Amino acid sequence: MSGDCSSQPQEEGKGRRMGTDYVDVTEDRLSVEDITERATSPTSGAIGLFVGTTRNNFEGKTVLRLEYEAYMPMAKKKMLETCELVRDKWNVENIVMVHRIGVVPVGEASIVIAVSSPHRKEALEAVHFAIDHVKATVPVWKKEIYGDESSSWKQNKECTWSGSGHP
Amino acid sequence: MSGDCSSQPQEEGKGRRMGTDYVDVTEDRLSVEDITERATSPTSGAIGLFVGTTRNNFEGKTVLRLEYEAYMPMAKKKMLETCELVRDKWNVENIVMVHRIGVVPVGEASIVIAVSSPHRKEALEAVHFAIDHVKATVPVWKKEIYGDESSSWKQNKECTWSGSGHP
Repeated sequence: MSGDCSSQPQEEGKGRRMGTDYVDVTEDRLSVEDITERATSPTSGAIGLFVGTTRNNFEGKTVLRLEYEAYMPMAKKKMLETCELVRDKWNVENIVMVHRIGVVPVGEASIVIAVSSPHRKEALEAVHFAIDHVKATVPVWKKEIYGDESSSWKQNKECTWSGSGHP
Repeated sequence: MSGDCSSQPQEEGKGRRMGTDYVDVTEDRLSVEDITERATSPTSGAIGLFVGTTRNNFEGKTVLRLEYEAYMPMAKKKMLETCELVRDKWNVENIVMVHRIGVVPVGEASIVIAVSSPHRKEALEAVHFAIDHVKATVPVWKKEIYGDESSSWKQNKECTWSGSGHP
């Protein structure tokens, strides 16, 4: 179920620097430390990170845990496409995106994105764009399990690939 | 040299939520995992983070390491003031800021800021504002040690408290 997918280092050029894209979808608990370490570069002075965690409530209902499913090959492809778009817009070095699937308890991370760059503005703007774009394009379904053990499957409300429910 | 400083939980009110401000200045290596854990809240779905790391170059010169000094009581006071300003502007939960002082080798973190909030926009905007404000207001001096072992002390170029060199 797990696996990683790294692109080749980018060539220097218009709006591009050396750097690596690393995307992964895994059932394992995410380590923010490991992901930060992977994004770190000796030529970068800044890392912007986003951590998405399971919240204990949704529209007034108690949420006990979330359960994620992804269409794996397409999820990684879409995550790499987001990396490309980030590199078109900002001068960044390494981009790391890892999405957790399966059960994610309250307070634990379902996604971590880290972007390094020489200066902080690029890293912070890039990570904001990246999570917005991932939410809009990556095929992931989310099941919310409520306090009364009822549940509902949801596709991301922001996604543009919608039209289909849980497969 | 090290110590922490937490404010009381905020009361609910205009532009405010329950949450804790935690600031620290330390000689220890920073743990992004611990800082993320401290920012995590069961009622938050998002954590925005910034990690500032030592870069191996500055204006074409090789940098071997950085060395930081802070005026401790004022540094923590200014960091807590930044937390207050963040809470005036965004609906966030926990704010954690830790600055490392002493020698910081290339690739290691000199500062980590983490902000949690129910939704991601607030956390990401708040962390961007927070690092900009910390850079502009917190009294920290930085010594760059170059490849030829020469060095120079610098105050933050962005700071508004300037006018004084290294004490």
